[in-house]
Amino acid sequence: MAQSSQPQYELLYHPVIPGRGEFIRLAFEAAKVPYTDVANTEKDGYSTVQQICMSQNTQSEGSNPPVFAPPALRVAGAGKDARSLVIHQTPTILLYLGPRLGLVPGDEVGRLYVSQLTLTALDLNNEVHDTHHPIASSKYYEDQKEESLLKSQDLRENRLPKYFSHFERTLKGNHDDGKGRYLVGGKLTYADLTVWQVLDGLFFAFPKELQARKGEFPDLLETFYGSVKEEGGIKEYLSSSRRLPYSQGVFRHYPELDRQ
Amino acid sequence: MAQSSQPQYELLYHPVIPGRGEFIRLAFEAAKVPYTDVANTEKDGYSTVQQICMSQNTQSEGSNPPVFAPPALRVAGAGKDARSLVIHQTPTILLYLGPRLGLVPGDEVGRLYVSQLTLTALDLNNEVHDTHHPIASSKYYEDQKEESLLKSQDLRENRLPKYFSHFERTLKGNHDDGKGRYLVGGKLTYADLTVWQVLDGLFFAFPKELQARKGEFPDLLETFYGSVKEEGGIKEYLSSSRRLPYSQGVFRHYPELDRQ
Repeated sequence: MAQSSQPQYELLYHPVIPGRGEFIRLAFEAAKVPYTDVANTEKDGYSTVQQICMSQNTQSEGSNPPVFAPPALRVAGAGKDARSLVIHQTPTILLYLGPRLGLVPGDEVGRLYVSQLTLTALDLNNEVHDTHHPIASSKYYEDQKEESLLKSQDLRENRLPKYFSHFERTLKGNHDDGKGRYLVGGKLTYADLTVWQVLDGLFFAFPKELQARKGEFPDLLETFYGSVKEEGGIKEYLSSSRRLPYSQGVFRHYPELDRQ
Repeated sequence: MAQSSQPQYELLYHPVIPGRGEFIRLAFEAAKVPYTDVANTEKDGYSTVQQICMSQNTQSEGSNPPVFAPPALRVAGAGKDARSLVIHQTPTILLYLGPRLGLVPGDEVGRLYVSQLTLTALDLNNEVHDTHHPIASSKYYEDQKEESLLKSQDLRENRLPKYFSHFERTLKGNHDDGKGRYLVGGKLTYADLTVWQVLDGLFFAFPKELQARKGEFPDLLETFYGSVKEEGGIKEYLSSSRRLPYSQGVFRHYPELDRQ
């Protein structure tokens, strides 16, 4: 991407998978603001990520507190005493970037709505992860497959309709401003990007289930899902090599877990 | 509590259990700011909670978006056009209350640290919930007991040490300012309250495991855990009838899930 006068933003995340790093990538891409995806683009980049995000230090890079887990964001000069700022937790990173990337409304109330929707979408993201790792994230899927079948059934039959209904009703309640395209106000926010990414992952992981649900949640699964894809920045990104394919991350396509 | 010039804060949550509502209660209690715990103190209070937080509306109370699930916070006059503000998601509610209750540092960087620690503590809270409901929150514990034994073992052996190490290292890294009593800076924040509440619940749910871990994480499980209890506001609260006992919420004491 072209150089600009923006701060130097570095995304610290695992290489190869979209994972939770994708929520941060989408924010930069929608805003067309340059960032460095350290593990995917720098020589020995993943060593940097591991050193900062997966160490046993009492501080991470200068006086920043330790990082619990990637994704983290490093911003040169933005921390205490003009040193680097290192923050983690996806909602915290988006909270920081939102106003800087123009992805939140101008008023506090609107920003709170964006925050709560994002958290709900990320809760769903976690529940999807647990469909293939219901017992332990440190064990293989194959070692918790029976439990995964049960957990996936609950996700498909109970949890997805609950989440989808919430987002569908939010779109309807905001229709005067959002026209079915935006969850809060009349402009793209990071809540739209986060909800969209979870939907996109679900279309990959549970294609039959999502197809079957389209008629029930047309605003969400047709209008909104289709429209965010076409946003400036996002459209270009999705057809670029920077958009990583789903593989062994949060969203996995195990046909046996999908609707039969 | 005494009347004051504070806004009228109403906590909308399930009655009887501490649950996720407790993180909000602790913030008000530490700040000694009056609030109404609607379901526990008002006649037909739970009807109000259900109407606002558990309906199928496209908006909740005026022009607020629908609520996904309790806890929610209602603040008279603080919403758009001076109507009520209704927000939900524990981290969003704490984000709103933090500066208003004096429970965050004055600088943005410190506030980001508080946000990320709170989210990590709430992630642990969710993992604890899943130890007795690994398959489906809509099913009884007794119907997922085998899976609960496995999930609890993973929590005790892998997840708790990971989380405890993170908080312990955060306390150590902030020792100059926090003296082992505070996670961020030299003053109580809502991150301290949130981490403390999860620890307190764990002492109830997994007493043997926590006792056995004390030597490994003395700053967290002795100094910090003991010191937050003694904070002004919190000490009085914990001995009051407003502090609800653990029962059938997130933190449950099933001896078979604890260290044997």
